[in-house]
Amino acid sequence: MMNSPCNELPPLLREIHSPADVKALPSDKLPELAQEIRSVLVDTLSKTGGHLAPNLGVVELSIALHSVFDSPKDKILFDVSHQSYVHKMLTGRADKLHTIRQFEGISGFMKRSESPHDAFGAGHAGTALSAALGMAAARDLDGENYHVVAVAGDGAFTCGTTLEALNNVAQTSRRFITILNDNEWSIDKNVGALAKYFASLQATETFTWLRDKTEGFIEKLAGSEVRYQARKLASTARGMISPASLFGQFGLSYYGPVDGHDIPKLIKLLRIIKRRNEPTLLHIITEKGRGYQPAIDNPSKFHGVGCYSISDGSTQKNATPTYSEIFARTLTEMAGDDPKVTAITAAMPTGTMLSLFREKYPKRFFDVGIAEEHAAIFAAGMASEGYKPYLAVYSTFMQRCIDMIQHDIALQDLPVRLCMDRAGLSPDDGPTHHGLFDIAMMRAIPKLVIMQPRDEAEFYNMLHTMNAYNDGPTAIRYPRGTGTGAAIPAQAELLPIGRAETLQDGTDIALFALGSMNGLAEQAARLLEAQGYSVALINARFAKPVDKNSLLRYARRCKILCTLEDHVVSGGFGSAVLEALHDEPDTCPVELIGWPDTFIEHGTADLLHHKYGLTPEAVADRIQQRLHPS
Amino acid sequence: MMNSPCNELPPLLREIHSPADVKALPSDKLPELAQEIRSVLVDTLSKTGGHLAPNLGVVELSIALHSVFDSPKDKILFDVSHQSYVHKMLTGRADKLHTIRQFEGISGFMKRSESPHDAFGAGHAGTALSAALGMAAARDLDGENYHVVAVAGDGAFTCGTTLEALNNVAQTSRRFITILNDNEWSIDKNVGALAKYFASLQATETFTWLRDKTEGFIEKLAGSEVRYQARKLASTARGMISPASLFGQFGLSYYGPVDGHDIPKLIKLLRIIKRRNEPTLLHIITEKGRGYQPAIDNPSKFHGVGCYSISDGSTQKNATPTYSEIFARTLTEMAGDDPKVTAITAAMPTGTMLSLFREKYPKRFFDVGIAEEHAAIFAAGMASEGYKPYLAVYSTFMQRCIDMIQHDIALQDLPVRLCMDRAGLSPDDGPTHHGLFDIAMMRAIPKLVIMQPRDEAEFYNMLHTMNAYNDGPTAIRYPRGTGTGAAIPAQAELLPIGRAETLQDGTDIALFALGSMNGLAEQAARLLEAQGYSVALINARFAKPVDKNSLLRYARRCKILCTLEDHVVSGGFGSAVLEALHDEPDTCPVELIGWPDTFIEHGTADLLHHKYGLTPEAVADRIQQRLHPS
Repeated sequence: MMNSPCNELPPLLREIHSPADVKALPSDKLPELAQEIRSVLVDTLSKTGGHLAPNLGVVELSIALHSVFDSPKDKILFDVSHQSYVHKMLTGRADKLHTIRQFEGISGFMKRSESPHDAFGAGHAGTALSAALGMAAARDLDGENYHVVAVAGDGAFTCGTTLEALNNVAQTSRRFITILNDNEWSIDKNVGALAKYFASLQATETFTWLRDKTEGFIEKLAGSEVRYQARKLASTARGMISPASLFGQFGLSYYGPVDGHDIPKLIKLLRIIKRRNEPTLLHIITEKGRGYQPAIDNPSKFHGVGCYSISDGSTQKNATPTYSEIFARTLTEMAGDDPKVTAITAAMPTGTMLSLFREKYPKRFFDVGIAEEHAAIFAAGMASEGYKPYLAVYSTFMQRCIDMIQHDIALQDLPVRLCMDRAGLSPDDGPTHHGLFDIAMMRAIPKLVIMQPRDEAEFYNMLHTMNAYNDGPTAIRYPRGTGTGAAIPAQAELLPIGRAETLQDGTDIALFALGSMNGLAEQAARLLEAQGYSVALINARFAKPVDKNSLLRYARRCKILCTLEDHVVSGGFGSAVLEALHDEPDTCPVELIGWPDTFIEHGTADLLHHKYGLTPEAVADRIQQRLHPS
Repeated sequence: MMNSPCNELPPLLREIHSPADVKALPSDKLPELAQEIRSVLVDTLSKTGGHLAPNLGVVELSIALHSVFDSPKDKILFDVSHQSYVHKMLTGRADKLHTIRQFEGISGFMKRSESPHDAFGAGHAGTALSAALGMAAARDLDGENYHVVAVAGDGAFTCGTTLEALNNVAQTSRRFITILNDNEWSIDKNVGALAKYFASLQATETFTWLRDKTEGFIEKLAGSEVRYQARKLASTARGMISPASLFGQFGLSYYGPVDGHDIPKLIKLLRIIKRRNEPTLLHIITEKGRGYQPAIDNPSKFHGVGCYSISDGSTQKNATPTYSEIFARTLTEMAGDDPKVTAITAAMPTGTMLSLFREKYPKRFFDVGIAEEHAAIFAAGMASEGYKPYLAVYSTFMQRCIDMIQHDIALQDLPVRLCMDRAGLSPDDGPTHHGLFDIAMMRAIPKLVIMQPRDEAEFYNMLHTMNAYNDGPTAIRYPRGTGTGAAIPAQAELLPIGRAETLQDGTDIALFALGSMNGLAEQAARLLEAQGYSVALINARFAKPVDKNSLLRYARRCKILCTLEDHVVSGGFGSAVLEALHDEPDTCPVELIGWPDTFIEHGTADLLHHKYGLTPEAVADRIQQRLHPS
């Protein structure tokens, strides 16, 4: 199942089994090690896929960190941590890189259970500073003095949690190191005032001046008073406000900017910072995709990428359009007829494909950065003025604004449209990205309508239904990738809210499938029919409100009613069905098919479906077992 | 049921029916109007309770806003909006102030359905800038030019959403007004670097100098270049970094600081700002509790207060300790024996009573500001280093960190203790504060243990059980106020995880009650017993995992099993019970008692229990109906 290592590891990397081996390398060998790592990354990920561009950007930083700090005693945290591949290679996992993101292989993110060097797991942005600060607080209470280093991209600084953490650094610990890895990108180009501010720091001649002047004398200048005087002098001379003042106002001593691909300089600065007894921030400038031209040319595509041809970076294009693409195209089309349609996303114009919408309607498009909470309230504000905002992010990221969906949107009956891409399994990404919880977290919110289409054609109709529905908020969940390839209807059909669709009538077994599970239901039905059962197939369409009439009809007619959802069973669609039927007499037993109450690991959809009993055979078996317990 | 207006409204206020009436008042009458409003506030709230201190602080600001802006065309948003009472009085609701926070009376927060002047509802902090920005974006798309004004306290700036919004202001709209109402308090004294920074702005002589110099010439100085030069001059002269630069870096023009109790000055500045075609921030300094000495002396107590004696501000002390008090005392006691116990809260040391813990263990106490997301990740970081962090906020605020509870805490098996105060009804506060959703939003999270005690004695035991449990995260929900008054045991008893407690055996009806609903269950049982039924009373203790053995025993023995929870039925404890029993043969029907799938309004607990059928009589009736349908 697993890719095998295509080539032997190159000579320097082959000898790196732990950070001690990095430290043992003569410093003039480190750039060579960087080259080796880069070529292994480009080579391996061409076959496995993965977060290529972010990792190419932090090769030198990772080497410098492990040259200066003493992991796992010192804690190194990577924000989001999709850029931890190099760290993994330097901490004894180079020979496992070819298994990355594959079933039973190493994770594409930091994972505490995988290695003591993975100090803190991540997957969602903006957590590294907060977690690191918790560790620093624990260390201080213990009277220990190891280092805690949080590496965060400039994108993380658009996220409220990072800014909350920043506000807490100075009062929490004096020994705290933040590294701002500034590459101007999260998945897409970063947005907002802080991105501009970071750019101004890069451009500032003050700092060029300071850096040039201090070359070789940087240790002396590391006294904060000296630096302060130099900065002030520069500031006064150039008639400008010191560009480092933002971090200063948060109580962090600012170092940089420095070229993040210059290993000796990084090591020098990290050694200085390590000795400081104050919270510090080192601003490094890196290039996303560094060293691999296709990734430099298209950092957004190579942020997270499938298999590609090494020579030109080309990837296989899907013949059928993805759900994301249909979403963006349909929304763009609707916006042509409806001037109140607007689109909002949180740092994912590419992932959601809203970049298509942006091209056509730039003024009605809002990318707010990695700021789902702000996005949801911002959408509510727009809706309160008569607009129809579509807020599109991945299902797993919508978890960040549950409170806002409840209070700012639903409580005020505001017709915000919540579009949850990657609902269901997000196979190789694993537990931090599976969209398996949205129904459970959202269906207790009064007034919210939650739906999922069974194929692309219905998706198109549902989006039009959403646009026509102004009585309150609606949410639509749709899976990653492509569906059945069903053709988009020429004319949209509006679907009645809360009404299921009977696809096939039957009298023994009723299968109520939500969204993409209709395919599984149909295959299971064929197996059950082969055993002589009469099977009804119902496309549930709505997780809230569920279609009680349809449920009752079949629960009273059939011997068993079975729900199927690409979601955990706890609190999900099936749970809503149980609630709907619980006080109705003369109903048949209900079987709930979905994901179990555990975190689902990464791996291909097929492997995971097999492991967790979500195959036609397993479903048919379970239903038969339930009908005829052995 | 409702308080009657104790006194006639005073003469000026009596004539204020809309903002036009404020504008019509001669400006020299405005301070008198402020005095009238203040005395009505102090007088009325002494009988109704409410957010006295915050409202006393914004009397002049509210008058100035309605003198300058044209609500409802111009949109005025108050963050959290517990400080909107004065706004309500000036927009035609002065004669309804005595009904505030009472059943069918006006809300203690902004409420869109209550008045067109309530531009955006709130209740949780940190939303005003985001919502206002959404409105400004809508206005810009419409080509309109009304004003949008967001009033936010300095506490709101500790909240990530405010900072996310701040990062988006400049790219979203040029016409946007933020008022920073700086009183150094949220509910408690504000924390963090920004609070310090705001204080430095207040103390800065630069600004005193600037303000003094510009007195009378302020209009001329409002040119940004002039202000910039003046600021730079001041900065250079005083050898300091410009204190306004933080907002400047976010692209907002800074005005202030100004005395927020000086109506003419406020009006003058607001008129200047109104004409600016750039995002602006006006920094006003106010005194929380202004004009009422007991509130000035104790702004935290008078933030939200029950009835009090006007003369000295004294309130009735509960004879029995509240759940909050027991929580804080028990935690403090446990911390004495266990050096790994730490306490974290998000701006509510008073509400959670963790101030008691802080007194004894200041180093192990962390108030991170209104930053629940950071708090949860920070707790995870501490737990990863072997600490036992107790994160305590209200149930409704825990909704802000659902994603973090899942990914940063549960996915990593980190034993963070989540302590949810005010779980269940939060009567007079209403829908933004009821803690009726936590189980639904959290129980799909794998590995999380969720419990609720039936009385104070069990609460004590559960906290000790939590402290002993290190295999993963635990959550405990406990209600506002006092319980049954059960005495705290001399010796803590550790409770088996996931095991219910049978209080009384029975064979007809099994009542599984969670937490505070055990009282209701017992009373209903007495009524049912009087009808000849044999009733089992089971204290469920755990909402996750539910005690399947106990459920099965009674579901097979009794004619009906009924769950009772102070929580919505959708996705709640009862729903978990349905899931647990759904594939078990030979079980009896289940009845679910809890709150319906709608937003519950404000009012006394008694009135709301009656309205929604949560009385012993209603419960007993429902069960009988279910047993013998008529």
